[in-house]
Amino acid sequence: MEGRLITLTTDFGHKDPFVGIMKGVIFGINPKANIIDLSHGIPPQDILAGALVLRYAAPVFPRGTIHMAVVDPGVGGKRRPLLIESEGSFFIGPDNGILSLALEGKKVGRIINLSNELYYLKPASATFHGRDIFAPVAAYLSLGLPPQDFGEAVSDFVRLTWPQPAKTKGVLVGEVMYVDGFGNLITNIQDRDLSAFQPDNLTFSVAGVTVQGLVSHYSGSENRDYAAVINSWGLLEISSFGGNAQLLCGAKVGDKVLVQEGQEPKGPTR
Amino acid sequence: MEGRLITLTTDFGHKDPFVGIMKGVIFGINPKANIIDLSHGIPPQDILAGALVLRYAAPVFPRGTIHMAVVDPGVGGKRRPLLIESEGSFFIGPDNGILSLALEGKKVGRIINLSNELYYLKPASATFHGRDIFAPVAAYLSLGLPPQDFGEAVSDFVRLTWPQPAKTKGVLVGEVMYVDGFGNLITNIQDRDLSAFQPDNLTFSVAGVTVQGLVSHYSGSENRDYAAVINSWGLLEISSFGGNAQLLCGAKVGDKVLVQEGQEPKGPTR
Amino acid sequence: MEGRLITLTTDFGHKDPFVGIMKGVIFGINPKANIIDLSHGIPPQDILAGALVLRYAAPVFPRGTIHMAVVDPGVGGKRRPLLIESEGSFFIGPDNGILSLALEGKKVGRIINLSNELYYLKPASATFHGRDIFAPVAAYLSLGLPPQDFGEAVSDFVRLTWPQPAKTKGVLVGEVMYVDGFGNLITNIQDRDLSAFQPDNLTFSVAGVTVQGLVSHYSGSENRDYAAVINSWGLLEISSFGGNAQLLCGAKVGDKVLVQEGQEPKGPTR
Repeated sequence: MEGRLITLTTDFGHKDPFVGIMKGVIFGINPKANIIDLSHGIPPQDILAGALVLRYAAPVFPRGTIHMAVVDPGVGGKRRPLLIESEGSFFIGPDNGILSLALEGKKVGRIINLSNELYYLKPASATFHGRDIFAPVAAYLSLGLPPQDFGEAVSDFVRLTWPQPAKTKGVLVGEVMYVDGFGNLITNIQDRDLSAFQPDNLTFSVAGVTVQGLVSHYSGSENRDYAAVINSWGLLEISSFGGNAQLLCGAKVGDKVLVQEGQEPKGPTR
Repeated sequence: MEGRLITLTTDFGHKDPFVGIMKGVIFGINPKANIIDLSHGIPPQDILAGALVLRYAAPVFPRGTIHMAVVDPGVGGKRRPLLIESEGSFFIGPDNGILSLALEGKKVGRIINLSNELYYLKPASATFHGRDIFAPVAAYLSLGLPPQDFGEAVSDFVRLTWPQPAKTKGVLVGEVMYVDGFGNLITNIQDRDLSAFQPDNLTFSVAGVTVQGLVSHYSGSENRDYAAVINSWGLLEISSFGGNAQLLCGAKVGDKVLVQEGQEPKGPTR
Repeated sequence: MEGRLITLTTDFGHKDPFVGIMKGVIFGINPKANIIDLSHGIPPQDILAGALVLRYAAPVFPRGTIHMAVVDPGVGGKRRPLLIESEGSFFIGPDNGILSLALEGKKVGRIINLSNELYYLKPASATFHGRDIFAPVAAYLSLGLPPQDFGEAVSDFVRLTWPQPAKTKGVLVGEVMYVDGFGNLITNIQDRDLSAFQPDNLTFSVAGVTVQGLVSHYSGSENRDYAAVINSWGLLEISSFGGNAQLLCGAKVGDKVLVQEGQEPKGPTR
């Protein structure tokens, strides 16, 4: 194994050969590539979910890693194929926001529009840039080619807006941002957003469910239907010990989440 | 990492240890093996789907790669375990057609019946040749052993018949051959099959749905329920932008697909 | 690739970044790690299924392999994080039984409570020890650090009880222990448990279904709805050739399985 690690994040699933095809292209260019699957189970065309997966996985990888992410409904259209350098690591994918959450709060270096067709697989299709543009660029980059070889520098990229919780009359209102495979409801409310409250006396509400108090870990909620916990990403999460909170209460991405002091929910949910 | 790449294509799914067991056998023989998963999500016992996955993934891998494919309902019966050499690469699996589509139009070299039990895991079971025959043979082959060590040469192998579209009274009739994880309906109609038509004025019909005109990429069909596109494999595909064509129209593998000139469908579908 | 192989078995699924995050942590510590996925499709919080996957996959890996298994509903509570050495290989995971079936009948060496926070990711969360404790310990161990560096030796670990079949009035009563992705009903009845019977004349019953005779391989049961076979793990399995036995008969884990001589089922099922 030589050169930089390459990670893959896609909505290609596990039935079709699309992921395998991209790996074949990479190995054809760099036979000693080291390719790591982050997720190929992003819901089809769900750019936000892909961006969140990349955001929480990329930072733990070593400096120099190449993160390639392909959730790309606009493939073949006007959206640009990009390579973005940030703090010594690299992000490759369509310019539709999928790379943006991983770059929040980071120094962004060169942003390259992957316009140099010398590094495309030929003939390049209009339907599978993962195979024809992103995989070969990632492979050549893993061999040590400099970013500027792949196209001209540009000055911006599409950024997803991370929804911000808002406080009104003592009630903090956030939303469900992601539901994980265990059915845990992950919100956009961060650990620090709760610091203005008394931690012992909080009430959480979502999708008709009310939860009293924060627990420190999942099994701390045994004998209760639901629990509120600060999860491993530093975000407020509503979970169900030994169950699946989403299936139990039917909450979905975008549902409002309310936090307030006291035993009784008040405000907007009433 | 040393020696030849090994790819795996199976219908073993992602819950059970079967894939992991085969990897363990391979690493036990070649601790420096480089194993690439092409797909373990082939529908159970769907030899055609496995053969199509292998057909479109294998050619992008570098010369010398070992492709092992196990969709094997006849395991333990009379079907032979095979190793086929083709243009410097290797194909290992049961002789039930799964290897055959990847070999269409290629030069086929030695075909070896894997009868040499010296390279089997012992005792070999009658229910899991992936573990007991194919994995150890792939591992020894990755170490550089010559194909003829694994058994005697034979002269043929089972070939799947690729359904051919037919033209009758100006209507080209093909069929849905594969439905991918996005719900795209992939047909047996190739790019070149459409060359006899005026490209600007084509009508496509499948499962009660009529589509006017070819678009070059998926988002080219925005604001329309369905689109016809030549996909990354050079095949006609009916898709739905931002949706799932299969769920929308209920088409399935084997359904007839009609192509004709003009705005109105005519012929067999009327 | 250098050092010991690391295998991963979890219930983290294929949608979320959790597996990718653990891999990133490992590569951050050992950039030349060789990580093998055994399964990430263990049903959520199903410790027995995870333990069975590990039991059948671990033995085929080479000596020295590090097997990390994380099905961990009690994360953050009182259960200990463990490293167990056995016959030159290593098992890392929560002390909830998930490691125990792989260790049945094996010599167990050092059992280490992973209490040395020097090797934790910091700050360690109370909700994701896969990332914060198990992955870094596996990574440092793959670099060759000795087990005793990671904490103090302890004398025991939680063992799952493997349900034993019982014989009453000539009827052997076992149970369905695992259902694989093909719908095969894998029982706790071993090959040797059947040695007291006449093999030619056995009747098997489960979930209202009666099967006559053992076959040696799946396709040996063609033209019959169900077949009884000794599977690749040496266990009695009820399967359906070309079908899915679980979907056909509705059997589930824990259902009783009866074996007796003769053509007619007798005893408890009547």
